[in-house]
Amino acid sequence: MVGRSSGSVTLADIACVAGVSAGTVSRALNGRGGVNAETRERVQEAAERLGYQPNALARGLLSGRSFTVGLITTDSFGRFSIPIMLGAEDALGAGQMSVLLCDGRDDPIRERHYLRTLLERRVDGIIVTGRRTDPRPPVGTSLGVPVIYAMTQSTSPEDLSITPDDLQGGALAVGHLLGTGRRHVAHVTGPERFQAARLRAEGAVAELAAGGGSLVGGRVLYGEWTEQWGRQAAVLLLDLVSRGAALDAVFCGNDQIARGMLDVLREAGVGVPADVAVMGFDNWEIIAGAARPPLTTVDMDLREVGRVAAQALMEAIDGERDRGVRTNPCRLVVRDSTAPPARSVARPDEAGAGLRG
Amino acid sequence: MVGRSSGSVTLADIACVAGVSAGTVSRALNGRGGVNAETRERVQEAAERLGYQPNALARGLLSGRSFTVGLITTDSFGRFSIPIMLGAEDALGAGQMSVLLCDGRDDPIRERHYLRTLLERRVDGIIVTGRRTDPRPPVGTSLGVPVIYAMTQSTSPEDLSITPDDLQGGALAVGHLLGTGRRHVAHVTGPERFQAARLRAEGAVAELAAGGGSLVGGRVLYGEWTEQWGRQAAVLLLDLVSRGAALDAVFCGNDQIARGMLDVLREAGVGVPADVAVMGFDNWEIIAGAARPPLTTVDMDLREVGRVAAQALMEAIDGERDRGVRTNPCRLVVRDSTAPPARSVARPDEAGAGLRG
Repeated sequence: MVGRSSGSVTLADIACVAGVSAGTVSRALNGRGGVNAETRERVQEAAERLGYQPNALARGLLSGRSFTVGLITTDSFGRFSIPIMLGAEDALGAGQMSVLLCDGRDDPIRERHYLRTLLERRVDGIIVTGRRTDPRPPVGTSLGVPVIYAMTQSTSPEDLSITPDDLQGGALAVGHLLGTGRRHVAHVTGPERFQAARLRAEGAVAELAAGGGSLVGGRVLYGEWTEQWGRQAAVLLLDLVSRGAALDAVFCGNDQIARGMLDVLREAGVGVPADVAVMGFDNWEIIAGAARPPLTTVDMDLREVGRVAAQALMEAIDGERDRGVRTNPCRLVVRDSTAPPARSVARPDEAGAGLRG
Repeated sequence: MVGRSSGSVTLADIACVAGVSAGTVSRALNGRGGVNAETRERVQEAAERLGYQPNALARGLLSGRSFTVGLITTDSFGRFSIPIMLGAEDALGAGQMSVLLCDGRDDPIRERHYLRTLLERRVDGIIVTGRRTDPRPPVGTSLGVPVIYAMTQSTSPEDLSITPDDLQGGALAVGHLLGTGRRHVAHVTGPERFQAARLRAEGAVAELAAGGGSLVGGRVLYGEWTEQWGRQAAVLLLDLVSRGAALDAVFCGNDQIARGMLDVLREAGVGVPADVAVMGFDNWEIIAGAARPPLTTVDMDLREVGRVAAQALMEAIDGERDRGVRTNPCRLVVRDSTAPPARSVARPDEAGAGLRG
């Protein structure tokens, strides 16, 4: 859904007139190498004659102009907003992109105050982010600068939102577990009211069914995003096993839950990954890296979400307005907690060591 | 070290002329309640006649003007910069203070870029913060707006820096352990190159000596700020105990170290706090609250550090420039990991259960 004003001159038009490729036009106008002086002159002449208006990004690169973006977050904790800030900064080089982070604290009055401050300080655009992906009302309309939502969604269909692909992330996790020979997978996650929890579960359950695995306990175990819940859920699962259930993997909805799960399994004498594989979600280094064993997890690639959001913002500044929800894929981070069970290497027909009551 | 221009009219001068208290003058000029119309008029008349120039803060309150402060941090991780941002915002009410956080990433070029961006966007002042308290070069001089350093220090004696009182924090921790009847205390902390680690150790060792306790192992155990180091140090300490050393408390330089210590002690069958008390530092809720048992720790009160820094910044905007390093006290957060040993309740002459080889 592109709203660029009709009739504007493109790089392809200039390439045609100057008799070179669009890539050469781009390199010539952006002052990058690989174009000789004569070609550069021909391109510049063509661009001028056609009345070419380089877009904001190109103008910035040409003029050394920098973009200043306001990032309004509801995430005081900073765990999600900081990588998004870093990614948005990365969309252009150092010195060309400034990101000013403001903490709205989930408070509409404070958020409006920051919106006003940022507009008064003449930012070029605004990115709104948060600590959960669920839809939220737009920060405002007709603000004079474009607004993009990242790691959160606007309820307005006119807005563009960039979110991690939680559905794909859930499927990715279970696909990895199936790939290491696991079949009896439990899913322990956060509160069902979180869209992220529901989507991860949906992706996980669908992938498990498609791969011929079984969901231990017959349902998703919704709870809290805490280590404590991970520990409680471990006790629940061990009880199921003692009553005859088979279990060879646990996919946890975040790294804290997985950490609690790991601790209780270890203390119960369950080998991870020998008997049961355990996975997390978030790739929160401080938790996943320090776990015993270090935790395989799913990374939402929030830095890339931030980079994509900033790129979309620059396109919007240039008049190319997009709308709707775009998802960005999660990626797998494999550590020691999900290695294939030793037994399945010797006997590939046997699906994992697993626990069985 | 106050640099206010001499001869400026104070609230006390107006109070004297108007025949009311300075508090009444303040309330009358700030438009707060509790002053009748006649008194308010008399105060305003006196203020006008004396040529009173309300300070920036008062002007802001009177005019509804808001302050915009740039916060430049080297702490991408956000764990230390976010509470400082929250505290700085709290220095005035919502809608009167905007804090724009920029991530300098410990990169002088990026930092200068952000400094320029903030000055171009006409911020009223700048707070520089970081993830360690060690002195750093000033961000610049003659910037036209005041700069305050928070949770970090400027090497320039002309600058004002506000830091947590790590020396007092170390003493506070050991004082608490001594107060619960412990005598044989180990101190396991981060790298010695960190000023914070050295100061906490210095405070801890001095307090221990003053209270008649002994430092287990005869020296401070410097290492890393990680759970892994906490686990290694636990193994070290258990080895000392097996060779005859007495141990009834461990003060860890941060919560992650304490978390690793707790895990290994539990698995070795050592009761915490029954046999050994364990303390952390930072009050990082996600680690300290989820620990088993929940962790007693020291809170650097970074939100207060941020509030004090913003207050000092407003005074500097008003011309009242201070300099040097001001420390802000840490406070104790008691959870279950340091309760007095059960045995010492029954036999107060016996100093803790403790471990003895």
